Amino acid sequence: MCQLLGMNCNVPTDICFSFEGFSQRGGGTDEHRDGWGIAFFEGKGCRNFVDVSPAAQSPIAHLVKEYPIKSLNVIAHIRKATVGKVSLENTHPFVRELWGRYWIFAHNGDLKNFAPNTRVDFCPVGETDSEKAFCLLLQQLKDHYPAQMPTLPALHQILRKTVAKIASHGSFNFLLSNGEHLFAYCSTKLVYIIRRHPFGHAHLVDKDVAVDFSELTGQEDQVTVISTTPLTDNERWTPIPAGELFVFQNGSPLDLH
Amino acid sequence: MCQLLGMNCNVPTDICFSFEGFSQRGGGTDEHRDGWGIAFFEGKGCRNFVDVSPAAQSPIAHLVKEYPIKSLNVIAHIRKATVGKVSLENTHPFVRELWGRYWIFAHNGDLKNFAPNTRVDFCPVGETDSEKAFCLLLQQLKDHYPAQMPTLPALHQILRKTVAKIASHGSFNFLLSNGEHLFAYCSTKLVYIIRRHPFGHAHLVDKDVAVDFSELTGQEDQVTVISTTPLTDNERWTPIPAGELFVFQNGSPLDLH
Repeated sequence: MCQLLGMNCNVPTDICFSFEGFSQRGGGTDEHRDGWGIAFFEGKGCRNFVDVSPAAQSPIAHLVKEYPIKSLNVIAHIRKATVGKVSLENTHPFVRELWGRYWIFAHNGDLKNFAPNTRVDFCPVGETDSEKAFCLLLQQLKDHYPAQMPTLPALHQILRKTVAKIASHGSFNFLLSNGEHLFAYCSTKLVYIIRRHPFGHAHLVDKDVAVDFSELTGQEDQVTVISTTPLTDNERWTPIPAGELFVFQNGSPLDLH
Repeated sequence: MCQLLGMNCNVPTDICFSFEGFSQRGGGTDEHRDGWGIAFFEGKGCRNFVDVSPAAQSPIAHLVKEYPIKSLNVIAHIRKATVGKVSLENTHPFVRELWGRYWIFAHNGDLKNFAPNTRVDFCPVGETDSEKAFCLLLQQLKDHYPAQMPTLPALHQILRKTVAKIASHGSFNFLLSNGEHLFAYCSTKLVYIIRRHPFGHAHLVDKDVAVDFSELTGQEDQVTVISTTPLTDNERWTPIPAGELFVFQNGSPLDLH
């Protein structure tokens, strides 16, 4: 199994504090040592850092912790290989382009007997069930809307239907972003926290590091952090109910029902 | 205009020495300060580091110089913006997936009145003529061979035809790789060098740094480095003739005629 970390904000924010704790789980405080990755949207552009070294020791992870990249949407992943060898092509997040936008995706879980026909527009490069699921999600979106991105409710509806089918194959927690929205689906385990005024202190679970967000933020800032399990031990994290596909925009969940 | 750097080898090799000199041209010894990027194939996987800071000062470029990533195919680019603002989505190399492989592309030149219809399978995310050209190349390949990659001569033929059309719009030097082959097209300026046994000393043009490759290589190693202008001042670099699309594999050019 693996672990997920996501961030969605209304102002470009760095993820250094959360990533500091999260990356410890990649071979430090936990066993997810089979590679890691983190993708940042910056405007329409995207950077994806992936490495097969454990996140707790990777020089690239060290850079990401030290170099504050500010972004509205971030997805990170640390891997414990279940399907597919330890190699760069099997390392999340995965990136593809659809409708002139990049899409990034990372998955925590395990899909059994999952062999979709994905060899049309989006073909997996590696061997993971995760990349297959990502390709299938994008293919379904493109099949329904070949020319351009539909409205958010339409997007949400197609994703929900496809996700339900995929999730019948096993555990399927994932984060997906197009740079504007961050979709978070909980199959078994996913929690989030919204930080907004008045900001307080936060203390990491995985390392004795604390931060006072009130010193780093503006009054209007709103930041949602999503993770497999809580990253801090002095804040209240909210579970996403199993079977729900949440959509975050500008740092808070949208009500699409 | 911009500058290109590529490497194609028969054994995974790091590009630290060449990148040390090349990155100086990004705001140090030359004016290409509008972002930079470098993409490495590792097996079927690919990592793409892109940054809008000048390469000579970027912390990510510093990491790439210090952290020897070994690869068979590398493409790097430093940008002086002509078309499209300085932003991540306009920063080369660009990456897309086709036939279950990643393809990476970087361009040096300037295309006039170039507005291809690319809004089918491969849509540009940014505003550059370069990304449009890349999308058009991939679309042509996919249109001719929807299901899987053809033989190399067939691939070369379609690329040559498409490239000739694109190059009629202006200067179009580019590097393109699918992880196995490295295609290098010279419209105005592109040189290469093949390093093989007996290996010798090399000294950079852009920085007073030298290396003795005989200490770092095996007898069978073969490495081609391609660049807009020579990176070393004590070796003989060969120009690619204008209008030629070279294909490198295992560190040497193939004869496809």
